[in-house]
Amino acid sequence: MTHPEKDALNSSAFMKACRREPAPYTPIWVLRQAGRYMAEYREVRAKVSFLELCKTPELAAEVTVTAAKRLGVDAAIIFSDILVLLEPLGMELEFTKGEGPVLHNALREPAQIDALREVDPSESLGFVFDAIGLTRKELPASLPLIGFSGAPFTLAAYAIEGGSSRNFDLTKAFMYRHPGAWAELMGKLSRAVAAYLRGQIDAGAQVVQLFDSWVGCLSPSDYRRYVLPHTSEIIRRLQPGVPVIHFGVGTGMLLEAMREAGGDVIGLDFHVELDSAWARLEGVGVQGNLDPVTLLASREFALERAGRVLEQAAGKPGHIFNLGHGVLPSTPVDNVIALVDFVHERSARSERR
Amino acid sequence: MTHPEKDALNSSAFMKACRREPAPYTPIWVLRQAGRYMAEYREVRAKVSFLELCKTPELAAEVTVTAAKRLGVDAAIIFSDILVLLEPLGMELEFTKGEGPVLHNALREPAQIDALREVDPSESLGFVFDAIGLTRKELPASLPLIGFSGAPFTLAAYAIEGGSSRNFDLTKAFMYRHPGAWAELMGKLSRAVAAYLRGQIDAGAQVVQLFDSWVGCLSPSDYRRYVLPHTSEIIRRLQPGVPVIHFGVGTGMLLEAMREAGGDVIGLDFHVELDSAWARLEGVGVQGNLDPVTLLASREFALERAGRVLEQAAGKPGHIFNLGHGVLPSTPVDNVIALVDFVHERSARSERR
Repeated sequence: MTHPEKDALNSSAFMKACRREPAPYTPIWVLRQAGRYMAEYREVRAKVSFLELCKTPELAAEVTVTAAKRLGVDAAIIFSDILVLLEPLGMELEFTKGEGPVLHNALREPAQIDALREVDPSESLGFVFDAIGLTRKELPASLPLIGFSGAPFTLAAYAIEGGSSRNFDLTKAFMYRHPGAWAELMGKLSRAVAAYLRGQIDAGAQVVQLFDSWVGCLSPSDYRRYVLPHTSEIIRRLQPGVPVIHFGVGTGMLLEAMREAGGDVIGLDFHVELDSAWARLEGVGVQGNLDPVTLLASREFALERAGRVLEQAAGKPGHIFNLGHGVLPSTPVDNVIALVDFVHERSARSERR
Repeated sequence: MTHPEKDALNSSAFMKACRREPAPYTPIWVLRQAGRYMAEYREVRAKVSFLELCKTPELAAEVTVTAAKRLGVDAAIIFSDILVLLEPLGMELEFTKGEGPVLHNALREPAQIDALREVDPSESLGFVFDAIGLTRKELPASLPLIGFSGAPFTLAAYAIEGGSSRNFDLTKAFMYRHPGAWAELMGKLSRAVAAYLRGQIDAGAQVVQLFDSWVGCLSPSDYRRYVLPHTSEIIRRLQPGVPVIHFGVGTGMLLEAMREAGGDVIGLDFHVELDSAWARLEGVGVQGNLDPVTLLASREFALERAGRVLEQAAGKPGHIFNLGHGVLPSTPVDNVIALVDFVHERSARSERR
């Protein structure tokens, strides 16, 4: 990357917001912006399975770039899945129709943790780094690219449950019953996640997002005891100066603890009000938090709600607009484009503080 | 009921806690205390389906009384289901193996709301009142009996989704898109719930609990707009002096609004810390909030955590000990009995404030 290209990136609205610097407008991207709701994505997926798409750098780059350009968002996020890291660890991952991800050798006994391999992402996850390299070349020079990984708790939860779950009872029972094995599992996952994110940054990602999607099933004290030190350790190991976005769902009670764990920007889901949530998070930016369901209701309703999110952010530097959860498959893509335009126009017009 | 019987009930530790009066020990009961984890329950269920059990007063009374006596808890809760109210409304309810409740004629269009019937519980839900009457006769005179219903939001969510859901997207989309039909649905449900709970109280319940199990999927502002007035209206319509427990899951961000909606006791789930949650709830008691997963981990671990819940409650009048969610099917019943004994002994020994 040339110096002018780096300058263009660093002075983008998105990177400014990550650093909590005033920006000319509120940057926006959309959780799961390359996904089933978009015809261009469905066309590619008609040819390959979900996991094949993740593992074919040319195709992953294509859907990443197409989504970012089609929507006119302020950042691209590399197309991948939070669970690809589990395979080199030794987990048998499959994406089944309807049921979503399944881990065939779910972790239920401490001995299974010992048997998990240490992950060297350069050997096993090169396809992601290649996809990032290709994407970076195809993206406009000023458009930041976000790398990401599942956070250790969420990865552990999938590995123990063998898939998704409502309450993650097995995960918590394992954590309570086998604290030593839990720490070992979290340690292995944390080392893997840190190396994986470092590799994504080296490959060309300007920002990384940690998805601790399911950590909201824990109480604050359990979070602090069983999760926080591991997440902290990952963030400490990343290259200095690269912004980290730290996100989970149902984490309204955990926000202060997640901020303590680390991250320059805390991702807010749709269960919280942006203003009161941000008030609890001194010294960091926030990302969010329009409910994706509003985009199903009607465009008018979604934009009205988007306006309220912008009002709650009050033009304070450090707000990245996003949904509070991934865009839903039945969402009209035109509603999402209208949202992006609305956020840009409305926030540029408002007086910036 | 004779006067001495009424006195015995009213001076029980449970009723005292409902009124936030000092009690000799912390009363405890267990969400879903009559359930699959208990052999006596499984024996009855081997003979009849779940819905038949709900609709056979003798059997419903039997499992209610057996569970309360077996555990030594301080209150019985009538065996039933939060969804039985949906049938007389016109919904086709089935409990399928594995999948849980299914509503075959899920509500997706406003016209379907118009077609729902107004419910007269004395005609359609007499089996619940009969079960309460029978149970009241079989219970010790000093043991309070809790009646209950699903709250309107949770009933609406089941009716619209056609069953359970992770995020209740269809429910929220309906609510956002058809605010008029939503208000009509909530109105019908609220009138039905109020009449149903009044009937349960008349039949012999000393306390009622409103289960707004899924309302945690809403943001505080949506809760206030779409739910709070309806829940308030129900509570206003109940007989004065009968304590109301108001409970939901994942409601950490909604506690103040739920308190505003009403209830003498707010039920806390396992996502919150009891002390900080109660500090946000002036003027009411709290019920909760041991994580049911702890009872799977080990008895020792569960009791350690139960001790912490008691410490967080600090002996303040108005605490009813409970789990933060229903007891899990694979829980050893002896662990639950040990929990009940522990709570009684530990709280009786502590200095009460």
